[in-house]
Amino acid sequence: MKTEMKTAGWENKVRRVVPYTPGEQPKRKDVIKLNTNECPYPPSPKVKQALEHFGEESLRLYPDPQSLDLVEALADYYHVGKDQVFVGVGSDDVLALSFLTFFNSDKPVLFPDITYSFYDVWADLYRIPYQCQPLDDNFRLKKEDYMVENGGIIFPNPNAPTGLMEDIEVVEEIIAANPDSVVIVDEAYVDFGCTSVIPLVEKYENLLVVQTFSKSRAMAGMRIGYAIGSPKLIGYLNDVKFSFNSYTMNRLTLACGRACVEDEDYFREITQKIIATRERIKPELKRLGFLFQDSRANFIFARHETISAAELFEALKADGIFVRHWNKPRISEYLRITIGTDEEMDRLIAWLENYMESRRA
Amino acid sequence: MKTEMKTAGWENKVRRVVPYTPGEQPKRKDVIKLNTNECPYPPSPKVKQALEHFGEESLRLYPDPQSLDLVEALADYYHVGKDQVFVGVGSDDVLALSFLTFFNSDKPVLFPDITYSFYDVWADLYRIPYQCQPLDDNFRLKKEDYMVENGGIIFPNPNAPTGLMEDIEVVEEIIAANPDSVVIVDEAYVDFGCTSVIPLVEKYENLLVVQTFSKSRAMAGMRIGYAIGSPKLIGYLNDVKFSFNSYTMNRLTLACGRACVEDEDYFREITQKIIATRERIKPELKRLGFLFQDSRANFIFARHETISAAELFEALKADGIFVRHWNKPRISEYLRITIGTDEEMDRLIAWLENYMESRRA
Repeated sequence: MKTEMKTAGWENKVRRVVPYTPGEQPKRKDVIKLNTNECPYPPSPKVKQALEHFGEESLRLYPDPQSLDLVEALADYYHVGKDQVFVGVGSDDVLALSFLTFFNSDKPVLFPDITYSFYDVWADLYRIPYQCQPLDDNFRLKKEDYMVENGGIIFPNPNAPTGLMEDIEVVEEIIAANPDSVVIVDEAYVDFGCTSVIPLVEKYENLLVVQTFSKSRAMAGMRIGYAIGSPKLIGYLNDVKFSFNSYTMNRLTLACGRACVEDEDYFREITQKIIATRERIKPELKRLGFLFQDSRANFIFARHETISAAELFEALKADGIFVRHWNKPRISEYLRITIGTDEEMDRLIAWLENYMESRRA
Repeated sequence: MKTEMKTAGWENKVRRVVPYTPGEQPKRKDVIKLNTNECPYPPSPKVKQALEHFGEESLRLYPDPQSLDLVEALADYYHVGKDQVFVGVGSDDVLALSFLTFFNSDKPVLFPDITYSFYDVWADLYRIPYQCQPLDDNFRLKKEDYMVENGGIIFPNPNAPTGLMEDIEVVEEIIAANPDSVVIVDEAYVDFGCTSVIPLVEKYENLLVVQTFSKSRAMAGMRIGYAIGSPKLIGYLNDVKFSFNSYTMNRLTLACGRACVEDEDYFREITQKIIATRERIKPELKRLGFLFQDSRANFIFARHETISAAELFEALKADGIFVRHWNKPRISEYLRITIGTDEEMDRLIAWLENYMESRRA
């Protein structure tokens, strides 16, 4: 700034927040990137075709505010009505708007103490009271904790960053016990071997299921998330969306998103490949002294029996292998390792073998 | 819904809003679309090139959360620092986040009674008190109205939907009189013959200028808006953005947005063409009995001396010519007519001549 500034009264009117810190997005191309749970495979070839056939002249016009092309493709895929699907700019957009729409009371919203780190950020942003319910010593949620008075409930299944799956019966018990609150099940990682509760939206009007294109559909760079729920729930969410920004999904996103959903074969192929790699790598990591439970996500959340997570995190990073580490209570000894390609995982294992070796020497 | 529903306690916790109704987006291809102020020309050919050279494999990865490609292009274009530029999903996203960030007090936010119809929607959504300051009988703002205690100030220049420009000296007086509030100048239409206050961001830390790619840059379908202000102001806005959604701008948007900004020649060419068409059409509309002031936007806000706006709106629509009409106090006799291509405007004029003729017969 070139000229001198008055000290500023306007700052008293500013909403101050502690923002979420996303996982590092290194600019270097030569890294093994296992830190933000992206898909190691490219998007469906149908997406490339959609791009090739996209007429860029149409970009002068606003997109369809109803996002019908994409909504219809998802409705067909999940066998629900078009009025049961909401789409947004990544599941973060869908979840943030859901917090704003559904958690509008003085009672605390409930979520696990170890969970997706954006939940408390949204609650703070919108001044929503919340209470973290501690997971048990095995990182499992205690269902009784979600059967107390509350302003709403949200948890991921499988949970993040633990990767642990909750039985669908337990999830249903929690939904059924809370007819006076909206229960959001965040299924960002459900496609890697967990069971979705989408079929339950026909039974429970207060259930919202949120999913994303960023993991199993290999489209993190396109920013698509969606929610499936009762027509009434989706209607309220649309009202808030149309009060915020009518046109959130651009024309390219709608075209590529639809093409992606329509290629079910490719989707099955890449998710199965990631599951196979994960299962193949589990015994390797165990052999090297890592401890972890049964992950149903595209990552493994593990600690090492002797080496600290902070040490491993830094040593891996120095050699261009990025994983995720949080300096937070209860999980500071864990690393979250995204499942990459077989080749990437073999390089990780080779690096770990070498590191253990040199450490013993 | 297939099974029966309980009546719902959860609905007591829902944020109820009256959503904004965007202008109609007809699916018919044969219409003359003069209702949502889109650009009648396609985006820069550089955008087509950016699409052709985009590697779709990269879509598997999250985009840059800092949106640096686009931020840098805009910083270069406007000769400001990278830390003075914020980008979002259309100017609606930028403005909504600005309301949430900067208008966080118990005092009323001030804006004109006749203005962009989203301002009161955002204020309602975020429970921000506001007060509409009536424009005078000539639809000009009275600067004294913005020199009273307030929680923030926002107005478009040129104003929407009137198209009238406020002198930059008056705008500066309002900014200077309000060091204790953020003043947002919404310059969505500034490129069609109005003067931007962007140079004033070096002088006033409390000034935020918001612009969009949807009008003068022919990219409504891509959803890009941006704000320029002091580094401190932009910092606060980024904090809130990172508390809402870290990755709002997808990879295609960043690539196409940058290509668009870099093609300054094309930008000048299409804005000059639209201005020329607007000036050519003004005397034609006057000859046909329309009354309007000097528009500096890509639309003309006009009433007819004898025929009601509602009648004209419906008759035009029946023949496939879409313009905008609001059933609102003070402006219900006005139509907002977007400037299209010369051919489209000639067809509009021919239609009007014919309509006047047959009405006299």
